[in-house]
Amino acid sequence: MNIKITGTGSYIPSKIATNENFHNHEFLNTDGSSIKAPNEVIVKKFKAITGIDERRYAKHHLNTSDLASFAAEKAIESANINREDLDYIIVAHNYGDVRHDSIQSDTVPSIASRVKHLLQIKNPKCVAYDLLFGCPGWVQGVIQAHAFIKAGIANKCLVIGAETLSRILDPHDRDSMIYSDGAGAVVIENTNNEGGIIAFDSATFSLDEAHYIYFGETNNQNTTDNRRYIKMYGRKIYEFALTNVPVAMKSCLDKSGVDITQVKKILIHQANEKMDEAIVKRFYELYNMEMPEGIMPMSIGKLGNSSVATVPTLYDIILKGNLENQEINEGDIILFASVGAGMNINAIVYKQ
Amino acid sequence: MNIKITGTGSYIPSKIATNENFHNHEFLNTDGSSIKAPNEVIVKKFKAITGIDERRYAKHHLNTSDLASFAAEKAIESANINREDLDYIIVAHNYGDVRHDSIQSDTVPSIASRVKHLLQIKNPKCVAYDLLFGCPGWVQGVIQAHAFIKAGIANKCLVIGAETLSRILDPHDRDSMIYSDGAGAVVIENTNNEGGIIAFDSATFSLDEAHYIYFGETNNQNTTDNRRYIKMYGRKIYEFALTNVPVAMKSCLDKSGVDITQVKKILIHQANEKMDEAIVKRFYELYNMEMPEGIMPMSIGKLGNSSVATVPTLYDIILKGNLENQEINEGDIILFASVGAGMNINAIVYKQ
Repeated sequence: MNIKITGTGSYIPSKIATNENFHNHEFLNTDGSSIKAPNEVIVKKFKAITGIDERRYAKHHLNTSDLASFAAEKAIESANINREDLDYIIVAHNYGDVRHDSIQSDTVPSIASRVKHLLQIKNPKCVAYDLLFGCPGWVQGVIQAHAFIKAGIANKCLVIGAETLSRILDPHDRDSMIYSDGAGAVVIENTNNEGGIIAFDSATFSLDEAHYIYFGETNNQNTTDNRRYIKMYGRKIYEFALTNVPVAMKSCLDKSGVDITQVKKILIHQANEKMDEAIVKRFYELYNMEMPEGIMPMSIGKLGNSSVATVPTLYDIILKGNLENQEINEGDIILFASVGAGMNINAIVYKQ
Repeated sequence: MNIKITGTGSYIPSKIATNENFHNHEFLNTDGSSIKAPNEVIVKKFKAITGIDERRYAKHHLNTSDLASFAAEKAIESANINREDLDYIIVAHNYGDVRHDSIQSDTVPSIASRVKHLLQIKNPKCVAYDLLFGCPGWVQGVIQAHAFIKAGIANKCLVIGAETLSRILDPHDRDSMIYSDGAGAVVIENTNNEGGIIAFDSATFSLDEAHYIYFGETNNQNTTDNRRYIKMYGRKIYEFALTNVPVAMKSCLDKSGVDITQVKKILIHQANEKMDEAIVKRFYELYNMEMPEGIMPMSIGKLGNSSVATVPTLYDIILKGNLENQEINEGDIILFASVGAGMNINAIVYKQ
């Protein structure tokens, strides 16, 4: 028995917000004071650190559940399965459906129920639920699907990561330039084919780290707006990730029994290019190796950070031949890795 | 190997709202028109259908994650385990932390991360995530914990259901009298002791039913308030539940191989007393039996409907001897059953 991804899909919103779109924003420090540098300089510095040129925003009439269903349709088509045979629909997200004109998260019914409705799946035995695990939610969904198949309660699962971060960003916060919208999905099956999930690992660091990513007020203190937005302590996250993610990736790879030299690609959560590079470099240092060129495909430049959607989207666009100079072939060993709110970390060693 | 609940706990908020507290409410029909009957009559009719005399509301300074952590502390204490040995913390909820003074759901970090933080658990290998599955979320969390133990990736799990429905109810809607706040928790372990989970079943009905429970506007149309609240199509839910829940319970019991006459207690989601009675009566009719007296312990009269919290709270108060004329003893067969937003249904056959 192998547990393998048999189909992938993604939905990349058509609306592009370039870095230039932020030139007229009023960015403020967290204490509400204005930032000395002109916006052109702020944006340039942002680009140098994060690698982000553009990000995608969902059209006003679409919600997270819509994006999720678009990606799911493609994954089902690419897996070439009958959707009525799905045993589980697992949707990882963080904020539910947040309508364009609203500040409220809508999570009842679950996003997974909405997706199942949109996919017009009739079979009531197809169980649909939502998983909240920060940005590593999609990877965790894959780990949960694996457990259900292993436990004998599922054969085919649809695992989706979908988010509309554009709906919950503070326009006065420089960090808001990171966030993007999107959805990625995979079908995972119990199969006799070669390959699949070899090993996985997850962790939650919450003693000191629980509130590194949080819901907080706008940086603009000259307002009666008491709405809260996605906020983060960037420096703390950077240090946390650099300390813990490479070790977690190594622990997972060592558990798999796969030699480091066999790893063909590392698909890491697209959080911040410099941080991702530093993590993967340090991961190779743990094996006394240099980071091989091209090992870490990146989509952040054009797609930004769409939370749970980044890893499945990246995987899908590589498999479909839509990422320049990157490919994944039958038999390749891939390492999926993710870090985010919780703070959660997880990794999967996978054979294509 | 048996997978068994080894500890329980619940948190019942001290703030009581009696039916009399609603005598001065301005209840309106969904079209905004006023209701002819005086409030005393509305409330009396409500009581006759739902069985609810009182409900509990969390104090203003407490959130869902606080309630969850209080119940969890008790479950850990009653299981007599070292909290650092927990492999998973699964928190079922629907709306996240909704502060008393806010209309926004706060779900980042996950409620499970917050609970782990509040419990001061250090071990990063204890994975904390949230599960959204409507009112049946806690039962589904138990099913997921079972799968993780069965798959060999966990030995001890903490499963919590917690909700503060008082924060998202429309004061102009009669249905708002149903909702309550609370939390229930259990520790589930891989054990050599007798008993535990014998069979389980879950289903999601979303083709026509996805939006039977939804997020909608206030019944008061003379307002600029575009805030949304928990809303339901009561009649449709009643018919749906009566058609599908007894069949699902029977399917689960038949799968377990346990004879209907061996069932000692049915712990059903405390949604509405009349509906619960009708479900259990019909369940027995499927076996050509009459519903045995006392088979269905009820807490709704004093505690209302606290969503995911009702079943674990009911179980806890019976085990601790706090529900009059009700007890569960070693070796007793219990049927847990739940129905709610999604629309989701699930059931577990369990040996104490």
